[in-house]
Amino acid sequence: MKVRVLILPKKGLLDPEGRAIKEMLLENGYQVNDVKVGKVVDLDVEEGTDIKMLVESFLVNTLIEEYTIE
Amino acid sequence: MKVRVLILPKKGLLDPEGRAIKEMLLENGYQVNDVKVGKVVDLDVEEGTDIKMLVESFLVNTLIEEYTIE
Repeated sequence: MKVRVLILPKKGLLDPEGRAIKEMLLENGYQVNDVKVGKVVDLDVEEGTDIKMLVESFLVNTLIEEYTIE
Repeated sequence: MKVRVLILPKKGLLDPEGRAIKEMLLENGYQVNDVKVGKVVDLDVEEGTDIKMLVESFLVNTLIEEYTIE
């Protein structure tokens, strides 16, 4: 079973990599409103795996990150 | 204009973070075939921006990474 998990910093929380990319693009002449950087994790796991449990136990810090499963 | 860019290591190339997560999940009893870890970059840029140019110039190393624009 293939599942894609997208993990992004919660709105309003620190995203130093996104900020760095935004600054760099602005310096290079791009008109940028916002950049957010997160992680994509492509999982290929056994059919029937409890993905929500797996993700919340091992992949995401739900205090500071939010995720979507695709 | 909001654009999501997904950046993943090319097939067959080193993905130490994916490997580490796979090992950790296996140790925790999950049946895992494969884990790949990449980056998601959410951009909010000016309408008409050449996204391919931006991504290939500043966000992706096309020698070792592949990307999709959503």
